[in-house]
Amino acid sequence: MTHFLLTCVELTETQRSYLQTTFSINQVVPIEMFDRADSGKVTIIYGWSDTLPSLTHFSSLKWIQTLSAGVNYLPLEELAKRNIIVTTTSGIHGHQMTESVLGMLFSYTRNIRESILKQEKREWGVANKGTDLVDKRVLIFGTGNIAKQLAKTLQVFGCDVFGINRSGRQVEHFTQTFNYQDGQSKLSTMDIVINLMPGTTETYHYFNDCLFSNMKKGVIFINMGRGTSVNTSDLISHIKTEKIAFAALDVFEEEPLPKDSELWGLKNVLITPHISGATDKYNDRAFTILTDNLMRFMKHEVLKNVVDLDLGY
Amino acid sequence: MTHFLLTCVELTETQRSYLQTTFSINQVVPIEMFDRADSGKVTIIYGWSDTLPSLTHFSSLKWIQTLSAGVNYLPLEELAKRNIIVTTTSGIHGHQMTESVLGMLFSYTRNIRESILKQEKREWGVANKGTDLVDKRVLIFGTGNIAKQLAKTLQVFGCDVFGINRSGRQVEHFTQTFNYQDGQSKLSTMDIVINLMPGTTETYHYFNDCLFSNMKKGVIFINMGRGTSVNTSDLISHIKTEKIAFAALDVFEEEPLPKDSELWGLKNVLITPHISGATDKYNDRAFTILTDNLMRFMKHEVLKNVVDLDLGY
Repeated sequence: MTHFLLTCVELTETQRSYLQTTFSINQVVPIEMFDRADSGKVTIIYGWSDTLPSLTHFSSLKWIQTLSAGVNYLPLEELAKRNIIVTTTSGIHGHQMTESVLGMLFSYTRNIRESILKQEKREWGVANKGTDLVDKRVLIFGTGNIAKQLAKTLQVFGCDVFGINRSGRQVEHFTQTFNYQDGQSKLSTMDIVINLMPGTTETYHYFNDCLFSNMKKGVIFINMGRGTSVNTSDLISHIKTEKIAFAALDVFEEEPLPKDSELWGLKNVLITPHISGATDKYNDRAFTILTDNLMRFMKHEVLKNVVDLDLGY
Repeated sequence: MTHFLLTCVELTETQRSYLQTTFSINQVVPIEMFDRADSGKVTIIYGWSDTLPSLTHFSSLKWIQTLSAGVNYLPLEELAKRNIIVTTTSGIHGHQMTESVLGMLFSYTRNIRESILKQEKREWGVANKGTDLVDKRVLIFGTGNIAKQLAKTLQVFGCDVFGINRSGRQVEHFTQTFNYQDGQSKLSTMDIVINLMPGTTETYHYFNDCLFSNMKKGVIFINMGRGTSVNTSDLISHIKTEKIAFAALDVFEEEPLPKDSELWGLKNVLITPHISGATDKYNDRAFTILTDNLMRFMKHEVLKNVVDLDLGY
């Protein structure tokens, strides 16, 4: 069988020729050079782009190797209907996302954010002594690869780390994990709550008024999962009452966050523009997933990081 | 022998009565209630204050348990002449200072500082993908308690951590340590340089034009030790040429940093107001050092964290 790989990811010349020689891929075409008339020949798509022709034109497509961990931007139903395999880059986000969570935490607990804002006014001094992570109780929603690496790292800092997943099954690096129901009853004892859940219909607006109400007064809330998991207006209410002492948000219901969103101006909110998964090493790490999966694909073996298209992750 | 403890550190009522009953200290007097006429009775000072009477009035003083790791603010020569013991709280700074170093690092490498500044203008997006700490080469000047904990933690993030001390003796948690001389030749291979040296005559302006010139183009420089270790105008020059891509400074030659210091306005500089050692748990942790040392003091045993008054640390 001949293969045509359409890549929406920038490849180096070395990477491109490696793909062609090692995997006998006849054509490796970058999206900028792609002729839509060739859509019917494409068997593999690497990455994804909103500018691609509609899926119906990709009549020979067998597999999409995405560049992300979450896939809620893909036409999952149609892909399922056509039995197209979707794989993610799950496993390469742990380092940078763990560092982003910690950077956001420390920006607050170590008074770095306050210092940055005061530096703009040449002002010396901060309002309080700050704190450190020793003995802090952390609850992470999600217990996948990223959550596991984060949990393991938080334990190095002396945190007691709990997790939440669908079944409540125990997962390494967590002191204890709960299912969605049991987890809610633990919320009030947690100093830090971190969302890493995928964006699915099940998690839509999961963080709502009720959930925020059950949190401890003065909690730190971090959203690194998907913006759709949070009811934004409920979140804003609980930030305003200072129930949530500090919210660090990397993902939003609408991205880019609209200019007129109230979130921008709240003093206890840190906004980052959906960057926690990014790193200058990303494409190199993703390429090792692609080549590993190509090896399996050519041998008709089961691929790594296959998405369950019904569950959406 | 009767004891009179003058405390410049706020104690809880429980802590105060614990000192009196457990150690048979006749008087535990907070500085706000202290009658200068009693200076001659004071045998122990806990903490330090610029408002204390001159040392000559403390004719019975045996021991100062400071609240800090560095002691360059004390009249060390006079203390040495009078054989007054000085002990530090060395060992209780590791957690919070490690977190501050990481917070400063991540504020840059994870684009958090840029996001904070853009949030003020409701601007979405950052200039580049950022990076992560995996495989970064870090050189720490100083290999004491704080440096060891920092080195151990940086290794968790995949850094290769090197240290510098006077003798070049090997220290746990460092891949390798060098003496001052050998260390300089390694500078050009380091991505991140962190100063944790004490402020002594030996370290005065140690970081000067020559040392900065030997660093790698694009280095990250963090000063958490003492401001006097750095020649500020040399530092500013190398920030302006972008030899130093990012400088995070918690200590300065003059503190508070003067309003007209050029450092405030440099775009690649993060200034925090000498807060990296602070935490809401500080006084509780220091109190355990005080009581541990009181136990030894009463039994005429050697105290912990005794300062070599000639070396100054």
